[in-house]
Amino acid sequence: MVDVSGKPPTERRAVAEAIVTLAPETISLIVDGRLAKGDVLTVAEMAGVMGAKRTAELIPLCHPLPLSDVLVEITPERAAGGLRIRASVATTGPTGVEMEALTAASVAALTVYDMVKSVDRGAIIRDLRLLEKSGGRSGAWTRPDVPVEEGRRPRGRQRR
Amino acid sequence: MVDVSGKPPTERRAVAEAIVTLAPETISLIVDGRLAKGDVLTVAEMAGVMGAKRTAELIPLCHPLPLSDVLVEITPERAAGGLRIRASVATTGPTGVEMEALTAASVAALTVYDMVKSVDRGAIIRDLRLLEKSGGRSGAWTRPDVPVEEGRRPRGRQRR
Amino acid sequence: MVDVSGKPPTERRAVAEAIVTLAPETISLIVDGRLAKGDVLTVAEMAGVMGAKRTAELIPLCHPLPLSDVLVEITPERAAGGLRIRASVATTGPTGVEMEALTAASVAALTVYDMVKSVDRGAIIRDLRLLEKSGGRSGAWTRPDVPVEEGRRPRGRQRR
Amino acid sequence: MVDVSGKPPTERRAVAEAIVTLAPETISLIVDGRLAKGDVLTVAEMAGVMGAKRTAELIPLCHPLPLSDVLVEITPERAAGGLRIRASVATTGPTGVEMEALTAASVAALTVYDMVKSVDRGAIIRDLRLLEKSGGRSGAWTRPDVPVEEGRRPRGRQRR
Amino acid sequence: MVDVSGKPPTERRAVAEAIVTLAPETISLIVDGRLAKGDVLTVAEMAGVMGAKRTAELIPLCHPLPLSDVLVEITPERAAGGLRIRASVATTGPTGVEMEALTAASVAALTVYDMVKSVDRGAIIRDLRLLEKSGGRSGAWTRPDVPVEEGRRPRGRQRR
Amino acid sequence: MVDVSGKPPTERRAVAEAIVTLAPETISLIVDGRLAKGDVLTVAEMAGVMGAKRTAELIPLCHPLPLSDVLVEITPERAAGGLRIRASVATTGPTGVEMEALTAASVAALTVYDMVKSVDRGAIIRDLRLLEKSGGRSGAWTRPDVPVEEGRRPRGRQRR
Repeated sequence: MVDVSGKPPTERRAVAEAIVTLAPETISLIVDGRLAKGDVLTVAEMAGVMGAKRTAELIPLCHPLPLSDVLVEITPERAAGGLRIRASVATTGPTGVEMEALTAASVAALTVYDMVKSVDRGAIIRDLRLLEKSGGRSGAWTRPDVPVEEGRRPRGRQRR
Repeated sequence: MVDVSGKPPTERRAVAEAIVTLAPETISLIVDGRLAKGDVLTVAEMAGVMGAKRTAELIPLCHPLPLSDVLVEITPERAAGGLRIRASVATTGPTGVEMEALTAASVAALTVYDMVKSVDRGAIIRDLRLLEKSGGRSGAWTRPDVPVEEGRRPRGRQRR
Repeated sequence: MVDVSGKPPTERRAVAEAIVTLAPETISLIVDGRLAKGDVLTVAEMAGVMGAKRTAELIPLCHPLPLSDVLVEITPERAAGGLRIRASVATTGPTGVEMEALTAASVAALTVYDMVKSVDRGAIIRDLRLLEKSGGRSGAWTRPDVPVEEGRRPRGRQRR
Repeated sequence: MVDVSGKPPTERRAVAEAIVTLAPETISLIVDGRLAKGDVLTVAEMAGVMGAKRTAELIPLCHPLPLSDVLVEITPERAAGGLRIRASVATTGPTGVEMEALTAASVAALTVYDMVKSVDRGAIIRDLRLLEKSGGRSGAWTRPDVPVEEGRRPRGRQRR
Repeated sequence: MVDVSGKPPTERRAVAEAIVTLAPETISLIVDGRLAKGDVLTVAEMAGVMGAKRTAELIPLCHPLPLSDVLVEITPERAAGGLRIRASVATTGPTGVEMEALTAASVAALTVYDMVKSVDRGAIIRDLRLLEKSGGRSGAWTRPDVPVEEGRRPRGRQRR
Repeated sequence: MVDVSGKPPTERRAVAEAIVTLAPETISLIVDGRLAKGDVLTVAEMAGVMGAKRTAELIPLCHPLPLSDVLVEITPERAAGGLRIRASVATTGPTGVEMEALTAASVAALTVYDMVKSVDRGAIIRDLRLLEKSGGRSGAWTRPDVPVEEGRRPRGRQRR
């Protein structure tokens, strides 16, 4: 574990993303709410939020941190052939929350798979990656290959 | 949660895989044991094993199950541009362990990212997916696009 | 902890219930999906399911058990002045799942409170109690004061 | 999860209560220390304290917070027909600890039930509710229907 | 993790012990119930029982197992200069519970230390070790240097 | 739980130690990396770090705290007849981290035992104790009987 003793707490945020590739019929089942296991988007978003809070238990060298915000949003995208999962996490602390954002996106993606696996066992979780981070001594970072408009928070959905 | 009351316990196994794409220099740092945070392969394999045991806490509709085997193996592959993570999980129970195998691979991959992120923030976790499962009423399944020789367990490494 | 060594595993089920008393406007906000924190029924049902799986961690003398079914259903009842939460849990094991059913109902009820507390701080969780249990040496038990028709599982909702 | 980024940490406290209704003989067994499972009051108070620390794991949208105080006190009250459980929780943080106090009271109540259920299966957990909170932007709140003298901390018991 | 797939479940038990060495006055404070933090023996016994249930989360290569019995007993022994902690754990499973017994004793001992550290910071946890195990292919084992009469379960205390 | 409301956060550190006594051949197996279960030192150090983060879940009256550093180092010492485990933990908080350091050392020691128990069932965990603490109102404390040179952090190993 990196020793962060004596580092002052600062506001930090990190955003991560994953794609779950699904068969077209599976996307329809999700959008139409016809899956036997229930409301995939709500359940997976919530699982992602809860997963973020378990990061320090799962990742051996992560610092346990209070979190001031966790937001997970899952958007069906037929063009991308699946669901886009975006997780945004914030803290006021001595170290960053990149792992929390990635863990949130990962647990949300695994939950999607669990809920569709009886009808789409071949679904794949792709491209789990950090999109951006801010705060801390190393400052802001944005993944070079992300178009600007993707960085905006989707509107019109309830925050969770 | 699917009601599995009355289903007899049977032996089941599932194998999942993920790839962590890394910069070539990062692969060298890992292989040469020169990363400040320590022995990436051993730590991430162990985190994956521990992660498998937390699956039912993370994935809302997973059944808590006793596990009879969890094996996580991480192999540097310069040709694939990163690390290949393979997780194999077994139980004797009324339902399968696909989610446990996927969770193990996912937590191992996240741990790799955590240990390299100071030198390779752009690393990506790609293609987390089920490779095969056996046991249970639905029987054996193998992902169609996996060449046969990939299905073999690597030799000459300590099991964990 | 009661020593259950040598007791044969048998199929067991327990059903518990709680009522969350809410202001009439709060019930409307929930039913109409207008609460800022999101879909109360789905989130609370899911939290109840996950809570059932943590029972042995929370209750000191509970045995850790594999669970074969957890179902939590929350029904708005204007006549009862709130939400009715019903949790049904099953296992095949040497001891019963009364505590798992009660814990599921309790965590679901607490989650409801968390999601409405900004608009209805005075909400009360009332009458958390076991309704019935079956299986095991002591056999079936039904709470005397529960009318028969309440024992039926609600229809037409997705199972979770 | 409500975004509390940028909110300054302030001292906060919340007090919650539950009643466990028991048969008169069960109260006697508890008071006289004659229950086979042991010292109900001490065990349940301890379980309540530990439960408070798990709140953010159980309640999906709760923020993980450091806690500066958790006190759970259980008082047999023959007049009320059972045990009165009171939980008081404090933090210095950007959000309140109402859910922690309610979770502590809830887990303590469930633990009482677990320890008496072999002799009093019909016991009921009633009236789990917030009594008061202080600190934070919304300031102090006291449940209107609680007589003033109930707000005092019981004396003469060890704090836990 | 050792692969125990296909091994039949059998009844198994393990007994472990630890000694907490304390100043004579500390032993008196515990026996007389005069410590500010409360009833050390009851709280530490209960923490040990709960700790046994967390073994597979703490010890990387331990199998998650259902437990059929956990008993922790703490006995003040002025002659030994402290407290003797004995933990006995049973399962019906494919592998043994030595680690569960040792973890129970260890968590109970740490809890004792936590409750006395303000008055006896120099207390030492000594000689945490397995006393005996039974069941499984390797059969029964008893530590050679334990006198026979120590193997008996203490009488006259409530089981927990 | 001791009420630490209103106490200002200060930097604190605690160091604890344990010895695992092993047969000489077991020490050789560990040092030569010939144990079937893998790299004992790395796995046990990692388990100790993760164990420190679970302290407040295991020890009933411990406060949950953010941790700014956890370092566990295990050194084979043939002269001492085993492995020396040293854990150092830091926080910036209102209370100390003695229990976190002791828990880290304890979990690391238990993990060592788990990995050697098939070849050395009689191994003993001895002398788990606090070596020193600093910070907080009570200030610095060093165990009287520890020679000064033992207090130095070992050099030339990767920090973890």
